[in-house]
Amino acid sequence: MSVSVAVAGASGYAGGELLRLLAQHPELEVATVTAHSNAGQPLLAVHPHLRSLGHLSFVETTAAQLQGHDVVFLALPHGQSAAIAAELSDDVLVVDCGADHRLTSEADWQAFYGDGWGGSWPYGMPELPVGDALQRRNLRGVRRIAVPGCNVTAVTLALAPGVQAGIVDATDVVAVLAVGPSGAGRALKPHLLASELLGNAQAYAVGGTHRHIPEIEQNLRAAGAAEVRISFTPVLVPMARGILATVTAPLVEGTSVDDVLSAWHSAYADERYVHVLPHGETPRVSDVVGSNSAVMGVTVDERAGRVVVVCAIDNLGKGTAGAAIQSANIALGLDEHLGLTTDGVAP
Amino acid sequence: MSVSVAVAGASGYAGGELLRLLAQHPELEVATVTAHSNAGQPLLAVHPHLRSLGHLSFVETTAAQLQGHDVVFLALPHGQSAAIAAELSDDVLVVDCGADHRLTSEADWQAFYGDGWGGSWPYGMPELPVGDALQRRNLRGVRRIAVPGCNVTAVTLALAPGVQAGIVDATDVVAVLAVGPSGAGRALKPHLLASELLGNAQAYAVGGTHRHIPEIEQNLRAAGAAEVRISFTPVLVPMARGILATVTAPLVEGTSVDDVLSAWHSAYADERYVHVLPHGETPRVSDVVGSNSAVMGVTVDERAGRVVVVCAIDNLGKGTAGAAIQSANIALGLDEHLGLTTDGVAP
Amino acid sequence: MSVSVAVAGASGYAGGELLRLLAQHPELEVATVTAHSNAGQPLLAVHPHLRSLGHLSFVETTAAQLQGHDVVFLALPHGQSAAIAAELSDDVLVVDCGADHRLTSEADWQAFYGDGWGGSWPYGMPELPVGDALQRRNLRGVRRIAVPGCNVTAVTLALAPGVQAGIVDATDVVAVLAVGPSGAGRALKPHLLASELLGNAQAYAVGGTHRHIPEIEQNLRAAGAAEVRISFTPVLVPMARGILATVTAPLVEGTSVDDVLSAWHSAYADERYVHVLPHGETPRVSDVVGSNSAVMGVTVDERAGRVVVVCAIDNLGKGTAGAAIQSANIALGLDEHLGLTTDGVAP
Amino acid sequence: MSVSVAVAGASGYAGGELLRLLAQHPELEVATVTAHSNAGQPLLAVHPHLRSLGHLSFVETTAAQLQGHDVVFLALPHGQSAAIAAELSDDVLVVDCGADHRLTSEADWQAFYGDGWGGSWPYGMPELPVGDALQRRNLRGVRRIAVPGCNVTAVTLALAPGVQAGIVDATDVVAVLAVGPSGAGRALKPHLLASELLGNAQAYAVGGTHRHIPEIEQNLRAAGAAEVRISFTPVLVPMARGILATVTAPLVEGTSVDDVLSAWHSAYADERYVHVLPHGETPRVSDVVGSNSAVMGVTVDERAGRVVVVCAIDNLGKGTAGAAIQSANIALGLDEHLGLTTDGVAP
Repeated sequence: MSVSVAVAGASGYAGGELLRLLAQHPELEVATVTAHSNAGQPLLAVHPHLRSLGHLSFVETTAAQLQGHDVVFLALPHGQSAAIAAELSDDVLVVDCGADHRLTSEADWQAFYGDGWGGSWPYGMPELPVGDALQRRNLRGVRRIAVPGCNVTAVTLALAPGVQAGIVDATDVVAVLAVGPSGAGRALKPHLLASELLGNAQAYAVGGTHRHIPEIEQNLRAAGAAEVRISFTPVLVPMARGILATVTAPLVEGTSVDDVLSAWHSAYADERYVHVLPHGETPRVSDVVGSNSAVMGVTVDERAGRVVVVCAIDNLGKGTAGAAIQSANIALGLDEHLGLTTDGVAP
Repeated sequence: MSVSVAVAGASGYAGGELLRLLAQHPELEVATVTAHSNAGQPLLAVHPHLRSLGHLSFVETTAAQLQGHDVVFLALPHGQSAAIAAELSDDVLVVDCGADHRLTSEADWQAFYGDGWGGSWPYGMPELPVGDALQRRNLRGVRRIAVPGCNVTAVTLALAPGVQAGIVDATDVVAVLAVGPSGAGRALKPHLLASELLGNAQAYAVGGTHRHIPEIEQNLRAAGAAEVRISFTPVLVPMARGILATVTAPLVEGTSVDDVLSAWHSAYADERYVHVLPHGETPRVSDVVGSNSAVMGVTVDERAGRVVVVCAIDNLGKGTAGAAIQSANIALGLDEHLGLTTDGVAP
Repeated sequence: MSVSVAVAGASGYAGGELLRLLAQHPELEVATVTAHSNAGQPLLAVHPHLRSLGHLSFVETTAAQLQGHDVVFLALPHGQSAAIAAELSDDVLVVDCGADHRLTSEADWQAFYGDGWGGSWPYGMPELPVGDALQRRNLRGVRRIAVPGCNVTAVTLALAPGVQAGIVDATDVVAVLAVGPSGAGRALKPHLLASELLGNAQAYAVGGTHRHIPEIEQNLRAAGAAEVRISFTPVLVPMARGILATVTAPLVEGTSVDDVLSAWHSAYADERYVHVLPHGETPRVSDVVGSNSAVMGVTVDERAGRVVVVCAIDNLGKGTAGAAIQSANIALGLDEHLGLTTDGVAP
Repeated sequence: MSVSVAVAGASGYAGGELLRLLAQHPELEVATVTAHSNAGQPLLAVHPHLRSLGHLSFVETTAAQLQGHDVVFLALPHGQSAAIAAELSDDVLVVDCGADHRLTSEADWQAFYGDGWGGSWPYGMPELPVGDALQRRNLRGVRRIAVPGCNVTAVTLALAPGVQAGIVDATDVVAVLAVGPSGAGRALKPHLLASELLGNAQAYAVGGTHRHIPEIEQNLRAAGAAEVRISFTPVLVPMARGILATVTAPLVEGTSVDDVLSAWHSAYADERYVHVLPHGETPRVSDVVGSNSAVMGVTVDERAGRVVVVCAIDNLGKGTAGAAIQSANIALGLDEHLGLTTDGVAP
């Protein structure tokens, strides 16, 4: 007996990727897709690449349309999830791809998002070390999940093993990320036009203003850091999908290369979707496009006294829709890997 | 009376850009172009975009072919400039786009390049602060010029004002650069294929191994830093040309935002090719494509205690051929701006 | 009980895509991967995106290595398949992704490929109309399959319905295709470098010289054309994968728009992987990336008296690996759809 | 004494390219730039790549602002030029980059644009053969110029020599063009987003509906064709700038390859900006980016009985701003080449 699913905000890029993955999922079945301005249109009018779901049409995003499904994925603009989730029954699994329920600190929310903190939900990053265990354990059986931010996932997975092992100084983290425009959604803004981005690169949200900063700090504290300070700069580059995060932090005095490699390799040894490359190798974004994988290369720069971790994810995959489905699988007691792939679409 | 010019290694990307700019130069005239495997071919067979020089053909790269010109630009692979330059008269202006004569320390050379240090030449970065003056002064009338590395130019110009003003801590610099593949030349390597790079991003030379590191350190010491340590990571992205460098360093305790803006704006106030944007703005690579400009945005991240400078240059323009011609103009006593443009080709 | 598979020439792009799809196939299991210069290396050294097959390493491409599997996919350079296939038992299913066995006319082979025609094999395009039936029928139970050329697939599927219905004049076909560089394989040629192709477009094999021409003609004759003449021009554009074919031919006098739409829609009404859009719509390459789908828009230009069919496929998917697996499924008596997807990876 | 210039609609891509070229023009000086929604903003807020014009700000687009300059370039949306031009003095040179005054037939205008035909102006394509002479002659001393459409320029220049020589059949022309998104301007439409176009290609205005069709027909009739019928399909591809037009037409019975080459080479032998490659070679878009050049390769397909001409231009250069300035130079009696370049920016 299949599990019925509704996807709210299904007309965006995150919604589209959720649908693409769900169409391959053997247990979950998409029954309802909702949208705002596209309500009433066939799904194919917005997502012509999703022919296997060609029978669906968008309905209005209301609690009434979403109610009655076993699982509801919310892919709504930030700030719109809390209200609609409050109207859904407690026994419905609600997986929020927005930011509304990620932060555990109301002060952080106010500093970066303003009013309207919705309270925190179980955090959908199964591989995050939390104390001596993994966040995976905290997702079993839950009925509310907050999916991490895409940049957050890349930076957190890149640095958590060193933090957990106590060998990196988390008070001087520097992260610079090459990111594709799909992370900004289907927003009609001039700098997201192809004419502007082709042959171009541009940083944005420079200087400590990006909303993903408090979420990264929260995660690294969960992994064991007493204090976290991060310089975070995303750089928009002309690839449709993907994040390549270069994350660096000082190593604690006396840390050897072996200590570093041991920490990272052991942290993810049992994970299917998080891969640590041999020393000296670096991942490509194309290795993870379309997949749920995060791949990272870890290098020690002895001259600079820093570890450099380069981590690739698909912002729409492991960065959003993949994490949502992986976490939902865990919550529902299904095989964690259903509907997900390890392999990227390359070249 | 025009100045006669030879370009050695003219079949590569740096050579091609030198020729494109020289074709517009009112005083310099290209008489000879040399190449290795392309010797004997018409220029258009290799550079079909250079129709205004369609009368030229490549000859062998030998000292005899280069001798007899007023100016010789060397765009040869690293390690090949020193031998050929030694055979050219002292009164010929020799401008080396390779690395052979950039480093003043033989130990640095050996650590990053190995044997065969060629000795240092006057350094072709007119805007570099050296003590209380600018490097421009040291280029007047010289007959040997070492053109800086492209990544070096972006990082040095980005950070030098803060170093010179004594307000940044140069012992903890982190630089991550989005770079286009033309910086690697026309090398037939798999990772430089379009199939591989389209839709992709990948870091390389991670962990303190890139050859531009000692050159950056040398420059920042020239600008006034007692000690320099830099974590440097280039990331290859799918734009043919350009560098977007994100450079960050801790601010010295007590430095205000005004101190920062004042240092950067005053450093380049008189420069035609180096531009500092208003606080909070960031440059685009497309603003500088084809031009000799470097454009940077400077932001203070008070939460992280760091200044973040994002700097855009064209690796083949200000990063190589533009700097070569600008420096040659100075050495020859010509108007510094001949043959160069400030405006980028966008979109 | 799973079916054992070997892939020869697995280090190329076609081989990589075969492996990516086979890794998802519930019945076929990859046991052996062979290569030439990469023999001895782990699969991940060449295809780092295929982590689910990380246990495999390349062995030499010899008949001995391939023998003993139930299915052998050949993804070898043109001209190398015939010799190795001749050494494999008749009861092994051999699926050749190369050109060696596509053409039924030795004269055509000699005109476009030269010596060494290998004889023709059953042609792996299930949806091709052949007389009153489909080619699918001719693939059941066979043990040798020639996979069509990628451009051939796009042009043939685009025009076959009109030819079959007798409403287009096949003696004046014009096809211009925007194609990605992966169609040329991982060849280290200057014009395939990212520096060259980014921001660029270039036609090649212009003027009737492309080797796919006789294959297209053969197919359209199979579909019912008495005579075929085609002007065929591929244009390399900066997208890693994909073909967008614009195919146009004169309409037979008296043909109405309804005749046209009826012919195309009815031809593919029962096909899962070939889709005809509503009149006036056109497909996007991104709709089919990573999938086995071909999507086309059909428009009548009454002013010019021509039908214009725009058809999108993934050159590595439906254009090569997808067709290979689909045809193998049919030959083996499996569900035709195993291991294949309808949905593209977009954006 | 310099010639004063105003650019109306200067905030768009065509306007930006006009300004970039005018900044290099030794005789024309930009005094005024006008815009609609950007009026009141500094030029650099919209065109940060135009630092050499950093002193300018946009004013409202009104006749009063434009009056009083020697030359007015109009880069307005189609349909807005006629009204404003009517208010400008007859002695002002008005160069319209829009479509308003291109067509000589009101019926054509109505069929493709609807109401409001503005009447035709001298047509700004100096190299167009008109009877036994060139259009250049008709531009001397004029005070109104209609700049051709960008696609029109590529197709017309590609085919005019064969039409003029009477060796091609213009009643069965097929043209398919790979075009960059800047041709659509800075319009905020979903299909022009980078997320959509990266890794993608898509045809539009298929089936005889594109507004450039009557203009091409008009030009080929001017070149000597009794009747013209063209199938015209533009394909959007992921390069910011440029057009690669593949244009094919049947050859008149008895035409030899030598006839073809002779016709094309002699037609443009004296032109600085139109280049015909040796037989068998094809142009690259990157050969013409940023320049005023059109480069074409001409091939005879004897099997198909067609000539295939592949022509590359920069849609913003020779396709718009370059043609505007070249024609203005002629009208003003200046050296035709001022402010223009032959060489492309590559790679």
